[in-house]
Amino acid sequence: MKRKVTLKQIARELDVSISTVSKSLRNSPEISEDTKQKVQAFAKLYNYKPNNIALSLKNKKTKTIGIIIPEIVHHFFATVISGIEQVANENGYNVIVCLSDESFDKEVINMEMLATGSIDGFIMSLSKETQLKKDFHHIVEVINQGMPVVMFDRITNDVFCDKVIIDDQMAAYEAVDYLINKGFKKVALVTTVDYVSVGKLRTEGYLKALRDNNMMAEEDMIVKIEDIDNCSVKIERLLEEQKPDAIFAVNELFAVTCIKLAAKMGVNVPDDLSVIGFTDGIISQFSSPAITTVSQNGIKMGRSAAKMLIDRLEMEEEDEHYRTEVIETHLVERESTPTL
Amino acid sequence: MKRKVTLKQIARELDVSISTVSKSLRNSPEISEDTKQKVQAFAKLYNYKPNNIALSLKNKKTKTIGIIIPEIVHHFFATVISGIEQVANENGYNVIVCLSDESFDKEVINMEMLATGSIDGFIMSLSKETQLKKDFHHIVEVINQGMPVVMFDRITNDVFCDKVIIDDQMAAYEAVDYLINKGFKKVALVTTVDYVSVGKLRTEGYLKALRDNNMMAEEDMIVKIEDIDNCSVKIERLLEEQKPDAIFAVNELFAVTCIKLAAKMGVNVPDDLSVIGFTDGIISQFSSPAITTVSQNGIKMGRSAAKMLIDRLEMEEEDEHYRTEVIETHLVERESTPTL
Repeated sequence: MKRKVTLKQIARELDVSISTVSKSLRNSPEISEDTKQKVQAFAKLYNYKPNNIALSLKNKKTKTIGIIIPEIVHHFFATVISGIEQVANENGYNVIVCLSDESFDKEVINMEMLATGSIDGFIMSLSKETQLKKDFHHIVEVINQGMPVVMFDRITNDVFCDKVIIDDQMAAYEAVDYLINKGFKKVALVTTVDYVSVGKLRTEGYLKALRDNNMMAEEDMIVKIEDIDNCSVKIERLLEEQKPDAIFAVNELFAVTCIKLAAKMGVNVPDDLSVIGFTDGIISQFSSPAITTVSQNGIKMGRSAAKMLIDRLEMEEEDEHYRTEVIETHLVERESTPTL
Repeated sequence: MKRKVTLKQIARELDVSISTVSKSLRNSPEISEDTKQKVQAFAKLYNYKPNNIALSLKNKKTKTIGIIIPEIVHHFFATVISGIEQVANENGYNVIVCLSDESFDKEVINMEMLATGSIDGFIMSLSKETQLKKDFHHIVEVINQGMPVVMFDRITNDVFCDKVIIDDQMAAYEAVDYLINKGFKKVALVTTVDYVSVGKLRTEGYLKALRDNNMMAEEDMIVKIEDIDNCSVKIERLLEEQKPDAIFAVNELFAVTCIKLAAKMGVNVPDDLSVIGFTDGIISQFSSPAITTVSQNGIKMGRSAAKMLIDRLEMEEEDEHYRTEVIETHLVERESTPTL
């Protein structure tokens, strides 16, 4: 049986990155002539068929939307998919979901796979690794070939396309300001590493809220987490050494982890420590105490993204003007903050 | 721009069901000659291209696995996908996910869409509506054309293919037997309607455990729920009128709903009422009290399903012998049952 050679196989055979293969095949000036020739010769030899989106676009509409998200065991992304599905179905579109598993290579491979005739356009949220590498050539390429892309939540300003976001900085600002107005003096931050765009924006919102309330940001009060499975030590040190009276956590897993570690140390939430999370998922609803949180409204975000994509797909003429829609957030008050 | 006409459009135009269109195009004897002619003529007129799986199979391997699941905001299905992804990636396969949203029509449309060249084989769990209709022609058709299918969790015995299941009846039996051995005399059941295969098997396990312990099954102690959004009245009536001392719920949403409604009525879990759920998701882990539950091991189920599919895809010769793998379950004891 004859097998189609994939980007991944070419990369492995020639011992170069998938990104290098992809760029070489598109004759990118970023890649040396030598490498390009090697890759192109190999691709030709093994009959590699690159994307030919423009061609397939001319011939047919698949009425299918491709979604690429970083992970699936994550209630926020699941709710966004539900929102996309609602609008897609209302308009006679199907939906296909692929996962990048936070990997740049998988994001490139999945886009390549879907772009070759399976779908009409993409709705996507960037993988952590893509944000770290700042390599968006696979997305730019797809757009240049005439296939629309809508980004949501984890976006980049380096690509011109339609986007749906929340105002992460403002949402974080409001949550921290809320804590300060409740009278808390030692508000800590549990956040992601800086290259995750939403984590960075939420960190900036925290810092701005402190500044506007004439409070000093202290380095020791900010914990940056790369890997949820290895965050306990850092959070325990924060609780022990800094004794914050409130924590703003940039996602619900961080928030529930803070609450659990606090309980283990005999610190009662909300009596001794208040916690506000981000993302109103089922963890926030069913954890004990239930967690006060910034609701991102994933359904609404998904609905907006689908609407923007379908509008663009069904436009008669091309429109070079891209929109960024900002979805409102709101604070859902529960048991992890004082009621008065 | 020329659009490919879809099954759905043909069905709408001719005012027949998608299943009728699909069967007519395959010349099924179940459909009247008159209808078949009408559908076939229409399809021809609008240049409808039916599946031609055998042809695409001969020409290439996509190295992609198609997954069709009933819903995505469901931790169990998300963990199964993670398990499938692990084994797929280890073997150089990609994964595409489509949702049936519990709809038969969407299941048919998604299979049709993926089967035409996008993927090498399917891993799927049946929609509720498909189980209710007992119409599996779309799956049989795909298998007959040489594309392997592995079913997991919600399966049917009417289709010959590889399957991965848990022993739902045995798992339910053990959970109920555990409650009876703790000394509970009034063990109620909160389950799904009968046409959901796993719900039915878990109900049978409950009944068998009562029988083997010489306890009478009472109709009033069994609540069958069709729609989670409208189940409160039935569960409240059970709690009020029957005053069970223990409840076995066939999924974690039913379990957490029982606990919340009990709390509202002043019934304390586990002091006045014990609850065991099914599916070890994040609701069970983070709800208060944390819920004792039957763990289905979704990751392992996904890994097994992917392994079975890839084995079959990479087999040199066709093997008509299908396997059903049974994944072990175990009870995770938490706070919703007494510790002694």
